[in-house]
Amino acid sequence: MINWNNLDTLGSYNELKKEDKVDLRKVMSGEEGAKRVKSYSVPMAEGMSFNFAAKAVDDKIMGKLKELSKEAQLLEKFEELYNGAVVNTGEKRLVLHQLTRGQLGNDVVCDGVNKREFYVEQQNRIADFANKVHNGEITNAAGEKFTTVVQIGIGGSDLGPRAMYLALENWAKKNNLLKMEAKFISNVDPDDASAVLDSIDVAHSLLILVSKSGTTLETLTNQSFVMNALKKQGLNPADHMIAVTSETSPIAHSDEYLDAFFMDDYIGGRYSSTSAVGGAVLSLAFGPEVFAEFLEGAAEEDKLATNEFEKNPALIDALIGVYERNVLGYESTAVLPYSQALSRFPAHLQQLDMESNGKSVNRDGNAINYVTGPVIFGEPGTNGQHSFYQLLHQGTDIIPLQFVGFKNSQWENDVEIQGSTSQKKLCANVAAQIVAFACGKDDENPNKRFEGGRPSSIIIGDKLTPKTLGALLSHFENKVMFQGFAWNINSFDQEGVQLGKVLAKKVLAHETDGALKAYSDIFNI
Amino acid sequence: MINWNNLDTLGSYNELKKEDKVDLRKVMSGEEGAKRVKSYSVPMAEGMSFNFAAKAVDDKIMGKLKELSKEAQLLEKFEELYNGAVVNTGEKRLVLHQLTRGQLGNDVVCDGVNKREFYVEQQNRIADFANKVHNGEITNAAGEKFTTVVQIGIGGSDLGPRAMYLALENWAKKNNLLKMEAKFISNVDPDDASAVLDSIDVAHSLLILVSKSGTTLETLTNQSFVMNALKKQGLNPADHMIAVTSETSPIAHSDEYLDAFFMDDYIGGRYSSTSAVGGAVLSLAFGPEVFAEFLEGAAEEDKLATNEFEKNPALIDALIGVYERNVLGYESTAVLPYSQALSRFPAHLQQLDMESNGKSVNRDGNAINYVTGPVIFGEPGTNGQHSFYQLLHQGTDIIPLQFVGFKNSQWENDVEIQGSTSQKKLCANVAAQIVAFACGKDDENPNKRFEGGRPSSIIIGDKLTPKTLGALLSHFENKVMFQGFAWNINSFDQEGVQLGKVLAKKVLAHETDGALKAYSDIFNI
Repeated sequence: MINWNNLDTLGSYNELKKEDKVDLRKVMSGEEGAKRVKSYSVPMAEGMSFNFAAKAVDDKIMGKLKELSKEAQLLEKFEELYNGAVVNTGEKRLVLHQLTRGQLGNDVVCDGVNKREFYVEQQNRIADFANKVHNGEITNAAGEKFTTVVQIGIGGSDLGPRAMYLALENWAKKNNLLKMEAKFISNVDPDDASAVLDSIDVAHSLLILVSKSGTTLETLTNQSFVMNALKKQGLNPADHMIAVTSETSPIAHSDEYLDAFFMDDYIGGRYSSTSAVGGAVLSLAFGPEVFAEFLEGAAEEDKLATNEFEKNPALIDALIGVYERNVLGYESTAVLPYSQALSRFPAHLQQLDMESNGKSVNRDGNAINYVTGPVIFGEPGTNGQHSFYQLLHQGTDIIPLQFVGFKNSQWENDVEIQGSTSQKKLCANVAAQIVAFACGKDDENPNKRFEGGRPSSIIIGDKLTPKTLGALLSHFENKVMFQGFAWNINSFDQEGVQLGKVLAKKVLAHETDGALKAYSDIFNI
Repeated sequence: MINWNNLDTLGSYNELKKEDKVDLRKVMSGEEGAKRVKSYSVPMAEGMSFNFAAKAVDDKIMGKLKELSKEAQLLEKFEELYNGAVVNTGEKRLVLHQLTRGQLGNDVVCDGVNKREFYVEQQNRIADFANKVHNGEITNAAGEKFTTVVQIGIGGSDLGPRAMYLALENWAKKNNLLKMEAKFISNVDPDDASAVLDSIDVAHSLLILVSKSGTTLETLTNQSFVMNALKKQGLNPADHMIAVTSETSPIAHSDEYLDAFFMDDYIGGRYSSTSAVGGAVLSLAFGPEVFAEFLEGAAEEDKLATNEFEKNPALIDALIGVYERNVLGYESTAVLPYSQALSRFPAHLQQLDMESNGKSVNRDGNAINYVTGPVIFGEPGTNGQHSFYQLLHQGTDIIPLQFVGFKNSQWENDVEIQGSTSQKKLCANVAAQIVAFACGKDDENPNKRFEGGRPSSIIIGDKLTPKTLGALLSHFENKVMFQGFAWNINSFDQEGVQLGKVLAKKVLAHETDGALKAYSDIFNI
């Protein structure tokens, strides 16, 4: 029997709060610091590692976190999830995104369909379609190859796939694997679609409409934009568009699309990068083999999330986060990848984490009286160093940090200046920052004083490739899931986005009064 | 005599804390709400307005904030600043960025130089240079026109100019004013330079090296990258490069550049978009007239920042922020522009605000015992609505929101779907969100319950143009300045970025031990 209890009812949580706090400045100094760097490290997939030496924990606290993980039955909950339990209680749905990249447990059969087989079937259909586009079997009406793929979607249909595309674009160029350039249209702001349309050759563009329901207003609006652009050139939109949607949506079997590929209700938008939502655009851009490698990396990392505590990087990361949030009281977390290719990875994690765990009621709909998901923000280092790191170092609040770094660049194109390459400088910077944040530095001039005691962890990899990217994505998805389990909230619904939609419709229908009417009047709606 | 006292020593601040809190849900309902929307609004430049109806304030609290502004002598401090006092106490420097766009007070003369005249002279030199590039008087060695301009800089030399360029790129295209496409290289990650170089025709590119000191390691490294690319094509880098730097830097009078344009120590990087740092790239991209309009908008808004409290949008915005931070205890603020063109404006504000006010000591270097600058993050709406808004609506912490919206798009290219244009949908969404956050909504299902009471303000404009963009920029610069004054901190230095630099150099020189050596070993440095 799984114990779905609130965090504050767990004995181990109350024990954890009583533990002595760790002085990071002290433990990260001298030989003890060096020892921590070596021992507070857990292997991840593809030779990567999760290093938490610079987190404000020690063996005692880690022991309590392990107890918490046991008492809250976090691994058992994950097992329930991947075996097909209705973990998304609010919407009464299974949660199956891990199944898009592997099968961790039993067959999951729903309405007579083996879901793993269903997801693989969609991947194969996409692979087949992408290969035909690449080899010229599927072309525009003039028989010319498509050169550009445009994803039209918003939220989870945009942020994840976009971040993944950007993460691999230069890697693909370097390896002659960029089959088609990808572009993304998301915002209902008409300037978004206008700018993308201005930058592409629509006659040679293949458009992917991504909407699970087939009714997302922003997405349908942007579809019309693109259809108008095609019609203006005398082209038939149906020759240029495919759909990614659920099988029951109004666009699933429509003549308006060349083809349609399917996801289902068991994959939330923010968890959909490894489903057809990411699969179509990434397979078209890089080829199905690259997408398959991305899935492999994710599957490998998923397996680690079933490990016991000490060998489970996502679980450790999650519980240190809970400790920082609920015991130490930190309100936000910065994600700082030292890789320009991960420029939009923080924006994806921002959705993944904040939409999943920004909740105030538990799985049963009862109010909880402890804090849940933090604010997530971030930019690539070294850029951030010359920007908001001032506050991270010397501001009045402590912000936990999540670094990511790679030993090698993607282009492997470098210059040596002042005795070191750019890549070495990049790595030296992230190493330096971890220690600067942890240890600080005293100074006679209080302006130049660094308090230290600012915790960080780092994921270190050899190079950002499709596999390591898949593993990174999986790590954070599983971290967020474990945290949601610990907080006893439903990380898989998003009721908080509904009210705004309802009120926006009222504004457009002129069914408003009071403040809403007053704002509508200002905007002359 | 100016009163440079800590916030917590001010009688008005202690009075403010005693005031009854405002229940936003109540005051934003019904006719009272409509009245607030109309009356809690202050004119900004270019017909824009700052509307704070949905902030948790009332006439009493606004009265106390006005008293605080008087007691802390915030307007007098601004006057000191623009008349040339050494407001940057740590570095013993004047603070003159407002002087790049107008003169609010007395002549500021430094070492015999009238600084307004100096900044205008640089603007004129840039305008002259840009015109010659545009009309073909200055070309590459083959006598062909430059088509692309590449800014090489980091931090303030990157984020502001990049955000401003992106904000006006489509406006310029629409109005046939895009003279040259601009690109930006910032990160020391070699993949950043490699990707940009892969996307441009270097033979027709003009490169701007931007570094005040002429010694910024990231920037010099990226310069070498670009120089190598030019040499590989048999081109002379000196035919392709200009510098923006201080007159005393090693690159100010070098044969390696076609020309050099100057800023000085009185303009911090994050305040440098209206100096030569933004001037060169924006004048080359859009023409000097467009840059001049941008400055005009900023100058107009600067004047409003000298107004008495009731007519001073930056001052009101600043003090409501202090109230939220120090009395209500909110730790972060989201910046949410409903304009895709402002996609990187939040990243610029993140630097502007967090680097300026992320401080723990006062102007005299003494520790303070109240919180200062918040975490700033954000993404354009409507994208954010489908991402992290879940947490903003239903998370356990309250995050104040800063909306920006425009009645018209830049392209003026739109489609009508379900009875409304995209632009109307965009405006309807921001109006709806303000009310949803403020008023919330009860529901029998606790999952669908919105607590409300989540404060926001909005800046509303007619259209995003060079002038409105300049005004927006000025508003936030002045807001940050007033907050720094209220907190009695130095908003113009950034000592917090130094320690990381020092340690990174040690890593590269292999002069490390302990944890730092251990991390260096992992990265194989």
